[in-house]
Amino acid sequence: MNIAIVGLGVIGGSFAKGLQAAGYTNVYGIDVSESTLKIAVDQGMIKKGFIEANDILQDMDVIMISLYPNQIAPFVEQHKNRLKDGAVLTDVTGVKTTIIEKVSNILPSTVDFVFAHPMRGSEKQGIIGADHKRFIGANALITPIATNKEASLQLIEKLYKEIGFDQVTRVSPEKHDEQIAYVSQLMHVLSVAVVNSQQASEETLTYAGNSFQELTRIADINAELWSELFLNNRTGLLKSIEHFEIELDALKHTLEENDDERLKAIFRQATNKRREWY
Amino acid sequence: MNIAIVGLGVIGGSFAKGLQAAGYTNVYGIDVSESTLKIAVDQGMIKKGFIEANDILQDMDVIMISLYPNQIAPFVEQHKNRLKDGAVLTDVTGVKTTIIEKVSNILPSTVDFVFAHPMRGSEKQGIIGADHKRFIGANALITPIATNKEASLQLIEKLYKEIGFDQVTRVSPEKHDEQIAYVSQLMHVLSVAVVNSQQASEETLTYAGNSFQELTRIADINAELWSELFLNNRTGLLKSIEHFEIELDALKHTLEENDDERLKAIFRQATNKRREWY
Repeated sequence: MNIAIVGLGVIGGSFAKGLQAAGYTNVYGIDVSESTLKIAVDQGMIKKGFIEANDILQDMDVIMISLYPNQIAPFVEQHKNRLKDGAVLTDVTGVKTTIIEKVSNILPSTVDFVFAHPMRGSEKQGIIGADHKRFIGANALITPIATNKEASLQLIEKLYKEIGFDQVTRVSPEKHDEQIAYVSQLMHVLSVAVVNSQQASEETLTYAGNSFQELTRIADINAELWSELFLNNRTGLLKSIEHFEIELDALKHTLEENDDERLKAIFRQATNKRREWY
Repeated sequence: MNIAIVGLGVIGGSFAKGLQAAGYTNVYGIDVSESTLKIAVDQGMIKKGFIEANDILQDMDVIMISLYPNQIAPFVEQHKNRLKDGAVLTDVTGVKTTIIEKVSNILPSTVDFVFAHPMRGSEKQGIIGADHKRFIGANALITPIATNKEASLQLIEKLYKEIGFDQVTRVSPEKHDEQIAYVSQLMHVLSVAVVNSQQASEETLTYAGNSFQELTRIADINAELWSELFLNNRTGLLKSIEHFEIELDALKHTLEENDDERLKAIFRQATNKRREWY
């Protein structure tokens, strides 16, 4: 089986490494950077690298597009006439409904596209940060669409499992975007807003403990990537912020009213829910 | 030197262990629970335990009050006529100005009170969770007041250092409460509001990654303790929430306006500031 990884960034590079480690020898890389391709070949992550996708795409059985959200549909548009019959394309982005809509409009019926989301990002960038061990024990989501063949879905699920993913769960694209807005995008919103607060200063670390360090970790954020993720899921993220604000207002109200009974009830509700999860 | 720890919870117990490990043999415990005192003696954390503080307080050179914020002034009030001349009292609570005000009004001039805040809490509770190693490398804050003797401040600083604290910094009580509202209390507000969101469900963990797990860790919160911490610092915490909301609104606005340039600028500002810290 010939596999192409399009975009050898930290995620694409990690997948290349993982596929090699799982025994797939015919893994090829496509990237705009010569030096990235050289590193990937030198480190045994790919068999061969290409700047021009057209030079190899027609021979690929699986094409893993590890590009930014807004680059996926243009990539498909540009290369759709060169794809092998029966090829399975897949992506790795953290938003789904808008990407699916754009890709579905242009995808040839001779190929299949399995939309997927490996849920183990990285604060690192570029092939230098690639490490397939990050995926061991991680979860992934697959968002099937009506035209997907069952065999295509199972193929991508199999590759993820072989690379080390633990749970690979099928969910609807709409549910995916709604929940990702809550569990991931909202966390980044809060972290960024905390760090940007006017109360932040050079002295902050004199006062900060573990929770501040943990909560602000993801404020070190890839602006190009996350602006695309946020804006491709604007409605979902705004909804998550609004739900959050309801609870924030409830907490504020207890402070304004000096209401210790209500405040304790809010804390107990959170404690109980958190303990159900972890 | 005779040292009493009042309240052998997770923090008081950890201090008892730490003082023993640092070579202080005359460490005594005062607690309302017989079984807690028995554990403390059996594990060599204290030399002897007392239910009645009056049985030993008059012989103590250092009295570390490891009680909840609202219990400190009443404890001092109850025992102020039994304190040894020159005794140094200290507390371990995360709020300062309101506690200082209450205690200052009743403290005999024959003793000194060094208000301190060891900044390494625990999600554990009770003596079972006591572990002095938690303090190794941690920071602490001391908030001097006008009546403090320099020798008293240095004594408490010395004990903290001997237990393993790294930085022990003197700051004003007002500055302490303002900054703690931002770096600690606000983190707990956000975490609790996230967990209490109506979007939380049994399925949440299917979607959640590292950031959700980290950010919600502190939503497992000691309701009795944190309601006292919040309400003793209401004004400061409300101010921190308001500063946070300004940044949250700025982010929301970029989503509503689909403004990717402004959104990227916000992300870059956060990234730069976060990298100055860690």
